[in-house]
Amino acid sequence: MVSSDGKPKAVVLLSGGLDSTTCLAMARAQGYECYALSVVYGQRHQVELQAARRVARALGAAQHREIGVDLSAFGGSALTADIEVPKGRSEDDMSGEIPVTYVPARNTVFLSLALAWAETLDSTDLFIGVNALDYSGYPDCRPEFIMAFENMANLATKMSTTQGRRIKVHAPLIRLSKAQIIEAGLKLGVDYGLTHSCYDPAPDGRPCGQCDSCLLRAKGFAEAGVSDPVLAP
Amino acid sequence: MVSSDGKPKAVVLLSGGLDSTTCLAMARAQGYECYALSVVYGQRHQVELQAARRVARALGAAQHREIGVDLSAFGGSALTADIEVPKGRSEDDMSGEIPVTYVPARNTVFLSLALAWAETLDSTDLFIGVNALDYSGYPDCRPEFIMAFENMANLATKMSTTQGRRIKVHAPLIRLSKAQIIEAGLKLGVDYGLTHSCYDPAPDGRPCGQCDSCLLRAKGFAEAGVSDPVLAP
Repeated sequence: MVSSDGKPKAVVLLSGGLDSTTCLAMARAQGYECYALSVVYGQRHQVELQAARRVARALGAAQHREIGVDLSAFGGSALTADIEVPKGRSEDDMSGEIPVTYVPARNTVFLSLALAWAETLDSTDLFIGVNALDYSGYPDCRPEFIMAFENMANLATKMSTTQGRRIKVHAPLIRLSKAQIIEAGLKLGVDYGLTHSCYDPAPDGRPCGQCDSCLLRAKGFAEAGVSDPVLAP
Repeated sequence: MVSSDGKPKAVVLLSGGLDSTTCLAMARAQGYECYALSVVYGQRHQVELQAARRVARALGAAQHREIGVDLSAFGGSALTADIEVPKGRSEDDMSGEIPVTYVPARNTVFLSLALAWAETLDSTDLFIGVNALDYSGYPDCRPEFIMAFENMANLATKMSTTQGRRIKVHAPLIRLSKAQIIEAGLKLGVDYGLTHSCYDPAPDGRPCGQCDSCLLRAKGFAEAGVSDPVLAP
């Protein structure tokens, strides 16, 4: 369904990181009225959420909701439990097995919550900023996962089963490199100074510069030939 | 993976109602060590959760976890928002359109959380007490939904994508009538006096007797030819 000014509505998962911010900018550029959803999943720092709030405001989201799910109750990840975030790994280190920062079933849980909100908004469009290239170790960042989720969602909801409407899970970054993501975002006017990517920030919110996420971000900015505004002195 | 005494582990969704309680008894009877999961999703009464705790204890669950997700933040259902629960409907009334007690994407969210816990437990088996006959109006209670979720889950997780293990979503009640569910549970020694089904209980926890859930439960006990211990004077 469409908003009062004729735009179709979309629910956009927004962590406040570089990828989800670019994804929100793309959804907006495609003409959607955007409903940004941040999932508070027991991550150890609130810096990410503050970034999500700044980004939702800057990119004109119609609404921004934060929903709490305490995935840390299940343990199993350096992002939710008391496991050390790895530092200073090379790309070869990262490309191997699934990293300890993998949160069990994270994107499944996130997309399920986005689907629940979409159904109450009468929206058939979900956006998620997953990326298959930079995070090849995460099973739930692959195109086949996104397609299987979309297929399931179309069997799960009232609007798709009784009203003949088709739910679509958009993953516009899925085949882009980090540099391509940054270039696309800059063209859309994204201010990456508002975003936060680090898995293990200092108490003042500054990125550590050594975790996988910081290293991938730095490489992306280097390859795009621009400087990262977050690191500006 | 198996527990220390050689049993395979299963995550069982447990609301404390008649169906999920029977489902837990069945999982146990099939030889699983059961990890009961109750999702606290902004329902308006806590009576259900108290029932879940009693049932998990009585049926010897290895662990019982309660995880909060505030689905009421999205609105859209008489079970989470301020919409009146319908009373005194006939079965014809119930068999038509999707009732207002439908919670958007509920089973998708519940199964996603069960999957997250299963992955940290290294368990490949999820149990959910959905039933296609009595709740024909709910799209996420149908076999095709369960199969699509299972397919998605097998593309979503580390254990299924890198370790060649197959995730199975068990829905042992899906084709049973309410009377058959009760008969099966009684054979397994379930004490239905511990369970709670009502959508709109009195402040002391007594069922209203008039909501769809109470009416289906009453019909099930009548057809099974036994009295409901919850209604014993």
